[in-house]
Amino acid sequence: MTQTAPSSQTKANIGVVGMAVMGSNLARNLAHHDYTVAVFNRTYARTQKLIAEHGNEGSFIPSEKIEDFVNSIATPRSIILMVKAGAPTDATIDELLPLLSPGDIIMDGGNSYFGDTIRREKAIAAKGFHFVGAGISGGETGALEGPSIMPGGSPESYKILGPMLETISAHYHGDPCCAWMGPNGAGHFVKMIHNGIEYSDMQVIGEAYELLRGVGLTNAECADVFAEWNKGDLDSYLIEITSIVLRQKDPRTGADLIDVIKDRAQMKGTGTWTVQTALELGVPTNGIAEAVFARAESSHDDLRAAARKYLAGPDGTVSVDDRTAFIEDVRKALWCSKVVSYAQGFDEIRTGGQEYDWNINVAEAAKIWRAGCIIRAKLLERIRQAYTDDPDLVSLMAASSVSAEMEANQSAWRRVVSKAAESGVPAPVFSATLAYYDMARAPRVNAALTQAMRDYFGSHTYERVDDHGHFHIEWTGDHSETRID
Amino acid sequence: MTQTAPSSQTKANIGVVGMAVMGSNLARNLAHHDYTVAVFNRTYARTQKLIAEHGNEGSFIPSEKIEDFVNSIATPRSIILMVKAGAPTDATIDELLPLLSPGDIIMDGGNSYFGDTIRREKAIAAKGFHFVGAGISGGETGALEGPSIMPGGSPESYKILGPMLETISAHYHGDPCCAWMGPNGAGHFVKMIHNGIEYSDMQVIGEAYELLRGVGLTNAECADVFAEWNKGDLDSYLIEITSIVLRQKDPRTGADLIDVIKDRAQMKGTGTWTVQTALELGVPTNGIAEAVFARAESSHDDLRAAARKYLAGPDGTVSVDDRTAFIEDVRKALWCSKVVSYAQGFDEIRTGGQEYDWNINVAEAAKIWRAGCIIRAKLLERIRQAYTDDPDLVSLMAASSVSAEMEANQSAWRRVVSKAAESGVPAPVFSATLAYYDMARAPRVNAALTQAMRDYFGSHTYERVDDHGHFHIEWTGDHSETRID
Repeated sequence: MTQTAPSSQTKANIGVVGMAVMGSNLARNLAHHDYTVAVFNRTYARTQKLIAEHGNEGSFIPSEKIEDFVNSIATPRSIILMVKAGAPTDATIDELLPLLSPGDIIMDGGNSYFGDTIRREKAIAAKGFHFVGAGISGGETGALEGPSIMPGGSPESYKILGPMLETISAHYHGDPCCAWMGPNGAGHFVKMIHNGIEYSDMQVIGEAYELLRGVGLTNAECADVFAEWNKGDLDSYLIEITSIVLRQKDPRTGADLIDVIKDRAQMKGTGTWTVQTALELGVPTNGIAEAVFARAESSHDDLRAAARKYLAGPDGTVSVDDRTAFIEDVRKALWCSKVVSYAQGFDEIRTGGQEYDWNINVAEAAKIWRAGCIIRAKLLERIRQAYTDDPDLVSLMAASSVSAEMEANQSAWRRVVSKAAESGVPAPVFSATLAYYDMARAPRVNAALTQAMRDYFGSHTYERVDDHGHFHIEWTGDHSETRID
Repeated sequence: MTQTAPSSQTKANIGVVGMAVMGSNLARNLAHHDYTVAVFNRTYARTQKLIAEHGNEGSFIPSEKIEDFVNSIATPRSIILMVKAGAPTDATIDELLPLLSPGDIIMDGGNSYFGDTIRREKAIAAKGFHFVGAGISGGETGALEGPSIMPGGSPESYKILGPMLETISAHYHGDPCCAWMGPNGAGHFVKMIHNGIEYSDMQVIGEAYELLRGVGLTNAECADVFAEWNKGDLDSYLIEITSIVLRQKDPRTGADLIDVIKDRAQMKGTGTWTVQTALELGVPTNGIAEAVFARAESSHDDLRAAARKYLAGPDGTVSVDDRTAFIEDVRKALWCSKVVSYAQGFDEIRTGGQEYDWNINVAEAAKIWRAGCIIRAKLLERIRQAYTDDPDLVSLMAASSVSAEMEANQSAWRRVVSKAAESGVPAPVFSATLAYYDMARAPRVNAALTQAMRDYFGSHTYERVDDHGHFHIEWTGDHSETRID
């Protein structure tokens, strides 16, 4: 170890527990911004590795024992946990708590379930400490160079922790991509929905890709199309890396790498939680749900093996008269489906913020997603503006700048969904978001029939368009109507 | 009270707690089959009402006090709870337990969450009693005249309770629509999925209805179409009552009742649980999910008000050259979407049965749904046959009788989804199930792109089509590939 160690009197400004890639990159990011960073890992070798490889990048205080680690941090202490969500996080908290002083802050920077964060914050606050559940997005590079950070917890803790987090976060035209989201679980809740939107974002790109392949484009041509799209309304990190990924060759065979990768998508849970929570809250998020199900279906090996053998249909070749026009239609469809998925995610943030008494500022969530995070996109500045203009906006689709563009693009969207269905190209998010859009704007939907059937078989009652209250028909009797309430 | 009370020596064969409509109808059903039925309700007036109105239908032993109720039942006692799911069920169990003798059986016949049933069964079995979570479907009429009953719990308890339940259940060509589903939560799990399928069944009927209205059919004409469909492959209770419901006039205005009913669908939780559990199990059930979301969206008043005001698109008029041909296309689409939803539901039963160690006999579930329950349909005999022929059938879609008909119908299905998208008719389940079908049978899906992106931004690795293990590309470095495991 060749770096100059801080003098023994110097206390660290902040500590990081967990020296896997996200934790060590975050520690380095802090050190790059002139903070003295205490670092600790259960296995000391990882800490030593960080110091050996990056110790000269700033001021680190490594400790082998957790007691020494805690003692090396100035009080009130700020300690960031970058350990696995679930039991490992609880275990680390249990080890830390006896070593803390009143007013110290533990921040959980992992992808914890917001319900766990609510539970932990309550238990830890009762002991006189602060607990901050903070979502961090941006992957490894983001952690190192500036992520988007979504902290929850007490406002007092944000006074101490906030300035450091804002300093190391990404910046969008000078604005830090970090803001206090609300009490206890609010930060992890917002991060969960960020990830849910990420699922649908990736799936709509995938559906567009399949359609472009369907009209005969090579991977390289698809890469060019995505690169072109990235110059316009669709400008975003995920579109950008799509064009990079599609150009990557397989180092082993020289083929396009994309064609060598097994088409089974993995997932880690945040998308699933987003949809489960949406169901709990009664928020329709079918765009995000279809993206989660698409990943599950792709990994359902036995289903796919059987289906390929037994199920008939067209082979995914998309036949069109004007290929250039169709590609432009796909771009517009992607934009519409993306916007609807975002609208659903922001609807969930708004509803969850009310349900859990967090009073989340929806515009702030959009604001800190403009840079640093995986779903960063030009669209987010427009979303921030829409929710700034009207904090009570009922749906992103209702913002005038959005609805006008939906109007311009919706015919193309319909042509694409229609063509996908005819051609056998699976486009679950494209079509689900269109159905959501059409159901939202329909003067009447089939729910009246649902209610009539429910009243028929279960006396569940119905409401009337011309009266208040609930009613029941004696369906198998004299067909009279009874007012229930 | 004019009925002849049983002599004071006579003990009841079975007891029912909860004299709301489902409970009293079930008690009457038992009495009609010559069982002596002890009845109890927290508010005695309800019990008195049952005896006053129906006491002469059979042998009842009413009690005002729960102690007397328990004492009036022959040991080992069988006690059926027909109370509200959740806290009321726990409260009733807590009252009963101190009064029971070893080997007594409590059966919960409500729509309890299967997780609660697992918890209760464990706690109650530890005390030396049996606890049976039993799903009951069929609505009020079913409870009275013969429901479909899905009991879980110990095999010993089924020996005692089973014969009584089988006697009062619906019968399909002589077979009782009641069978033991498996230990602890298995019965309520199967019932939950029955209800999930019910959601998608109702929604696909609703989508078909909107499309028929879109081509200009009146409600009466739609009723005729559904009545006609009910003579063929689609023969089912829900199609049957749809045609009845669509003919019902509003007693107040004389208009078609369906047009007077507010188009906001309610729900009680089992559909939501089905999808949340499917997400937990990783089973793609997008047909059921879209049906649940459609109900949520229909009740999202503020979203719909804003969307009607701001969002553009076609008005839902479906223009076709040949209306008769299109109606036949809709019938085929309905059949395909219905089958896919059932396939997803049975996939969830199969997967849940494995995950929770219940060893559920999937064919038995189909068998007891053939009559009595809300989703009873001609299709279920075919499903029973398919799972009897191959208990390990990976998907209903892979059964030869099903895949052959899918092949015959899939072109029509595509035309309908395509037409709905063009016309602005929301058809979320029609389109989601088609996307599921096409994704299942596709040789390659876009999940490879998802995995490539995940590896790019998060080093989440990918698998290769030509090798085992997980790999990572140095995307921003030298583009080399590293084997991770």
